[in-house]
Amino acid sequence: MTAHVLGIDFGTLSARVLVVRAADGAELACAEHPYQHGVIDRALPGTQAELPPLWALQDPRDWLSVLREAVPAAVGQAGIDPASVAGVGTDFTASTPLPVLADGTPLCTLDRFTDRPHAWPKLWKHHAAQAQADRITELARTSGQPWLRRYGGKISAEWQLAKALQILEEDPEVWAATSRWIEAADWIIWQLTGQETRNPCTAGYKGLYQDGRYPDEDYLAALHPRFADVYRTRVAHPLTALGSRAGGLTARAAAWTGLPEGTPVAVGNVDAHVTAAAAQTHHNGQLLAIMGTSTCHVMNADVLRDVPGACGVVDGGIVAGSFGYEAGQSGVGDIFAWWVDSAVPERYREPGRDVHEVLSGLAARQRVGEHGLLALDWLGGNRSVLVDHELSGALLGVTLSTTVVDVYRALLESTAFGTRTIVDAFGAAGLPVTEFVAAGGLVKNPLLMQVYADVTGLPLSVVESAQAPALGSAIHAAVAAGIHPEVRTASAAMGSRRRAAYLPVPGHQQIYQQLYQEYVRLHDYLGRGGNDVLHRLHAVKTRKH
Amino acid sequence: MTAHVLGIDFGTLSARVLVVRAADGAELACAEHPYQHGVIDRALPGTQAELPPLWALQDPRDWLSVLREAVPAAVGQAGIDPASVAGVGTDFTASTPLPVLADGTPLCTLDRFTDRPHAWPKLWKHHAAQAQADRITELARTSGQPWLRRYGGKISAEWQLAKALQILEEDPEVWAATSRWIEAADWIIWQLTGQETRNPCTAGYKGLYQDGRYPDEDYLAALHPRFADVYRTRVAHPLTALGSRAGGLTARAAAWTGLPEGTPVAVGNVDAHVTAAAAQTHHNGQLLAIMGTSTCHVMNADVLRDVPGACGVVDGGIVAGSFGYEAGQSGVGDIFAWWVDSAVPERYREPGRDVHEVLSGLAARQRVGEHGLLALDWLGGNRSVLVDHELSGALLGVTLSTTVVDVYRALLESTAFGTRTIVDAFGAAGLPVTEFVAAGGLVKNPLLMQVYADVTGLPLSVVESAQAPALGSAIHAAVAAGIHPEVRTASAAMGSRRRAAYLPVPGHQQIYQQLYQEYVRLHDYLGRGGNDVLHRLHAVKTRKH
Repeated sequence: MTAHVLGIDFGTLSARVLVVRAADGAELACAEHPYQHGVIDRALPGTQAELPPLWALQDPRDWLSVLREAVPAAVGQAGIDPASVAGVGTDFTASTPLPVLADGTPLCTLDRFTDRPHAWPKLWKHHAAQAQADRITELARTSGQPWLRRYGGKISAEWQLAKALQILEEDPEVWAATSRWIEAADWIIWQLTGQETRNPCTAGYKGLYQDGRYPDEDYLAALHPRFADVYRTRVAHPLTALGSRAGGLTARAAAWTGLPEGTPVAVGNVDAHVTAAAAQTHHNGQLLAIMGTSTCHVMNADVLRDVPGACGVVDGGIVAGSFGYEAGQSGVGDIFAWWVDSAVPERYREPGRDVHEVLSGLAARQRVGEHGLLALDWLGGNRSVLVDHELSGALLGVTLSTTVVDVYRALLESTAFGTRTIVDAFGAAGLPVTEFVAAGGLVKNPLLMQVYADVTGLPLSVVESAQAPALGSAIHAAVAAGIHPEVRTASAAMGSRRRAAYLPVPGHQQIYQQLYQEYVRLHDYLGRGGNDVLHRLHAVKTRKH
Repeated sequence: MTAHVLGIDFGTLSARVLVVRAADGAELACAEHPYQHGVIDRALPGTQAELPPLWALQDPRDWLSVLREAVPAAVGQAGIDPASVAGVGTDFTASTPLPVLADGTPLCTLDRFTDRPHAWPKLWKHHAAQAQADRITELARTSGQPWLRRYGGKISAEWQLAKALQILEEDPEVWAATSRWIEAADWIIWQLTGQETRNPCTAGYKGLYQDGRYPDEDYLAALHPRFADVYRTRVAHPLTALGSRAGGLTARAAAWTGLPEGTPVAVGNVDAHVTAAAAQTHHNGQLLAIMGTSTCHVMNADVLRDVPGACGVVDGGIVAGSFGYEAGQSGVGDIFAWWVDSAVPERYREPGRDVHEVLSGLAARQRVGEHGLLALDWLGGNRSVLVDHELSGALLGVTLSTTVVDVYRALLESTAFGTRTIVDAFGAAGLPVTEFVAAGGLVKNPLLMQVYADVTGLPLSVVESAQAPALGSAIHAAVAAGIHPEVRTASAAMGSRRRAAYLPVPGHQQIYQQLYQEYVRLHDYLGRGGNDVLHRLHAVKTRKH
């Protein structure tokens, strides 16, 4: 019987279940399941009380519905025998932690906590713990915590430590009732296998686990006297390497999914990082960019280096045996969408054509540099290499002849320049990038891809699967099932990318090189303190009356 | 019988004839007359041959039609006895020079020259003599011409010397046939009175007449061997003070206009400068801004000072007995129009309301600084104080929440900051500005006016006449007619402005002071060589393939 594996990609608004042939990665069927409660950012389900600004929660029952509904649907669509499913792999958004009892029961499902916002899972984009994050970073800096440099010198408000401290400080009762503070990536494995596990990806990138340990208790106590034991009592658990078998499906999970009891389940993983398996980018020098509303860059190397302004480096964080590096751009596709939504007039909208396609088509007719514009892509702040969310975007070179197409193209280019700063940062740290691999929704824009090749000067490969994270999870499932011996070989057999789909055009490259120098000069002037005008504008903007 | 005067304002696309009561300036009627040939920038009338880029010509017969049609129409509308018209005053765009025979006949009306573009009047916005202007400036600089500093160190391609040199170099036959090279402002007076005159306004601001003389022949010969005599043989003529009687209507002109033969006609004048009479801004410290697609600033002072980056200072250039200073912003209303035309979506358009009114209404609800943006108003280059047409605009502080209303408000503010740099330049030169007086089409935008008051920190008065230049011409007519003894007293009696219609709001002023400091820092960085990126972007943009 042909062996199949399932990859389940838990996203922000929905999850996708992909059925894959284990031998070669052929995608047989995909079922998407929108979460009933989506992102909970206004009021808790069934209540009216408004959540404070910047909150973003989820309902863990929505995740379980995926197992009950989308898994059988996908298997049915594929027309395969459920008994042929040899393994299940998952990936999740991160950091999306939740407080649970010792048996894994989410606090938010208990009557006594269901009306308490802090009892609910905090979605990655819950941004209400910024004050805690600032203190975490500042204290780490002043007390010389050795792990801080592994995170580009800054701990994000999105990560589990800041979110935990927010609970302790704002709802100590919920914190007192929290037995385990666990990433959804690991919680879902617990639900499938009945066994608590920890994956090295969230532990490292989101949990500050470095060199075999979490941050020490003296440091944590200095943040808050009752915070000293946060890791020891609520987080710590032996790590299981990515691609390893976390356990087998329990009878309950088998009943939910319609799969055989005992089916191997891979350890939890994160959507961006798992994509490396689908993209076959487990080797030195391959920078994988998952390009959507924002871009996440991941790269592996066999050496440990400090990369200033990168988001994190984790030993085995992407694949066992390599150091996994992560960087990112906070705004990419959402910058293009912002321009289209806010400023592009009706006359650019054609029935049956996406307006991005229309604008890209018009922009593609331009000679490089013809629009005379230069933009800074900081409309959503700068995640790498400046790690500064109060920066904002800029546009130079505007004339009375500038068109919305000109600006659109300049915005595309600005994100390519932003990516180039990351490529350069890796290179300067002794990790030269030799191939740029693009995945995600934006790869279908050929102008954008060509611009990235021209600006980086790198051969650009594209991952054509529309379900690259789910495919990555399926690859990990195949390893957990023992069909392939390890993630790299499974990736070689099951992943795919169109190699060097775009090559830099020398004539373009030369002009972009000049424009990139302008970008860097402005980047450093406005982003590294030459002129702090963007921070001052932010201060004026957010000043109370 | 009540005495009346006519003011005729010859603009770019049309002229307006205003009938005014001489005693108090009451406006009785106005007739507008569009030019049949408008701006000639594609092909000469009746021909197909395309004009080169940047050319802009007019047909002098269109100007005469104004006398034949709009003057009787206005007098008829006013319901007054033509015999009650005691004087006629005119103003013209400038520099708009034309080549004529010794009797004033325009070369373009002669059969042998009618198909020669250089035989036609060159409208102010004919920009095809830039190469000549550059040489004129460069040679003036290297040979130390004393008059260069009076023009902010730069001679414009719009002015008569560059346009003359272009004819000599590109069509020497036309140049050889040119007996007089005369501004339309003076040519129209010749047609009305039969007498050639020269006004000090165009002679000074556009003809480089300073300290009683034109540029000397050695300098001119160095530009071109056959250019030495340009002033002596074709331009020079005794000047007649503004407001003086140039002559009386000839029988021919009386027949055209329906006015009595011999009716006094004032010496020629320029649209921006003549507006000072309507605005009552003939006193030290009053800066008059004529605000339309671009802004022209004029100010009088009883002392001569170098104002770096001003467009010109001319003794008696605005009113006899004062030094008249001019400065300008190349883009103002056309920047707002650019944003509306290129980037504002349909949803901001409401039936029966001007979209500028809609956007301004929404922008007016914002707290100062709330949008977090800062713009540089150089979308049409910078006329003062940098005098650099290759500069371009910039926008900083853009986020994913920025709206088209935010940008619109930031653009309004940027032009106010631009005006403030001019106010500051006058102040630094020892000519403090104490009142800001706005005239022109933009005064009807109350948000814009308040922003200008807040940004400059000055009381802002507005000229409410929709025909302020024509009113200024009528005031000069009343002086030429002897009804008022001199321009200042006529202005006091007939002009008007709403004094201090807008006052700076201290709370706004304080934030704008801070934002203006940011503007200046960026202005100097991008405009004075700190970072020459705008010039380099211009070079990349205009580079040949």
